[in-house]
Amino acid sequence: MDSFSRQFEQRFAEREGQQAEPPAFDASFRARLLDLLKWRRDVRRFKRLALPEGAIERLISIACLSPSVGLSEPWRFVLVEDEMRRAAIRDCFQACNKDALEMQAPDRAALYARLKLAGLDEAPVQVSVFADRATAQGSGLGRRTMPETLDYSVAIAIHTLWLAARAEGLGVGWVSILDPSRMTAILDVPSDWVFIGHLCVGYPEAEDDTPALERAGWEQRRPPEGVVLRR
Amino acid sequence: MDSFSRQFEQRFAEREGQQAEPPAFDASFRARLLDLLKWRRDVRRFKRLALPEGAIERLISIACLSPSVGLSEPWRFVLVEDEMRRAAIRDCFQACNKDALEMQAPDRAALYARLKLAGLDEAPVQVSVFADRATAQGSGLGRRTMPETLDYSVAIAIHTLWLAARAEGLGVGWVSILDPSRMTAILDVPSDWVFIGHLCVGYPEAEDDTPALERAGWEQRRPPEGVVLRR
Repeated sequence: MDSFSRQFEQRFAEREGQQAEPPAFDASFRARLLDLLKWRRDVRRFKRLALPEGAIERLISIACLSPSVGLSEPWRFVLVEDEMRRAAIRDCFQACNKDALEMQAPDRAALYARLKLAGLDEAPVQVSVFADRATAQGSGLGRRTMPETLDYSVAIAIHTLWLAARAEGLGVGWVSILDPSRMTAILDVPSDWVFIGHLCVGYPEAEDDTPALERAGWEQRRPPEGVVLRR
Repeated sequence: MDSFSRQFEQRFAEREGQQAEPPAFDASFRARLLDLLKWRRDVRRFKRLALPEGAIERLISIACLSPSVGLSEPWRFVLVEDEMRRAAIRDCFQACNKDALEMQAPDRAALYARLKLAGLDEAPVQVSVFADRATAQGSGLGRRTMPETLDYSVAIAIHTLWLAARAEGLGVGWVSILDPSRMTAILDVPSDWVFIGHLCVGYPEAEDDTPALERAGWEQRRPPEGVVLRR
């Protein structure tokens, strides 16, 4: 047995002795978790109220508990605090949003314009999230045939942050009407970081169990039966 | 005001009157949620024990509560039940895994081979998950500059399923060492569906709060401070 394998066996043995008691999740927890999933919303209207000290850092540390391909942890969180950069992101959104408006039929365009797609003016905290495609962490495990799994790991970390925020009474809005290469430039991050999403975080104006786009008549959720195949 | 906008206003007004009471999430729920995130694992060893009747369908319906770009709900779940198709997926994994082994240094390759990267032989339920890039749902909202947000929505739905499964005492293993175009062919799904991941679902052999790759000495989790920038 080589030294690497011995080390591997030893680590397993050590862990056996020191493992914490696994938690048991009961029906009451599952019901609350379902509430969390049902009442998580993509928030666009925020109160102009600062987050508690350390809240965003805590949410990011919870997001870091997410699964990642080959334990690569490729998520990179950029807290956007500079007013000039915030204005540049707002401009980027407006340019992309204008193009998107022109693609919609006139009656839908009017609706689209009213949907107020960004909380960029109101949210106290803005976080841009990137995937570090060049990370050596994980030694490439599990991502050779599908390097895009690095990006998926980051999308999942955003989701974890979103759920943790909602459980603290905070709302998250994911802005995707942006130009990824422009975001990389505005935020001056390495060029091999892939832009995944820009998040607005703050106290929501309202709580709801129905997506804003459904309330507004844009689109409706469909029954799960329609998305399941058997093979 | 055109008829579309009137309808929009009306829907909002109707909703005001009928909205359910928002849930309040307390510190005890947040502590359990943190336990769930800490004890969710990428499971590779499963008991040979069937899932309860209807369990996977329930987990998929919970996954459908996930956020999706423009309410496009692009997730498509393929329950893989046919033995021939399961064997073809196993072959696909083995071919990709062999290539991956050759890329690693010899000592790491030995470790890699022992990590048992797939629960493909043991898990009672296997689900392949795809993103329908051609869906008309959502009318393209929010995804013009970043069509890959459709794929991110599906990755997030997988994460929701994962958490819901863990809360029921079930484990999920995400297999990414596969060839996406081969998966599309094996499962005979439309060619504009993008393969996102193949999931093994079952009762885990063991529970743990430390990732298997960390237990095995492959890689370690890093402190969250290292992934936060301020701009």
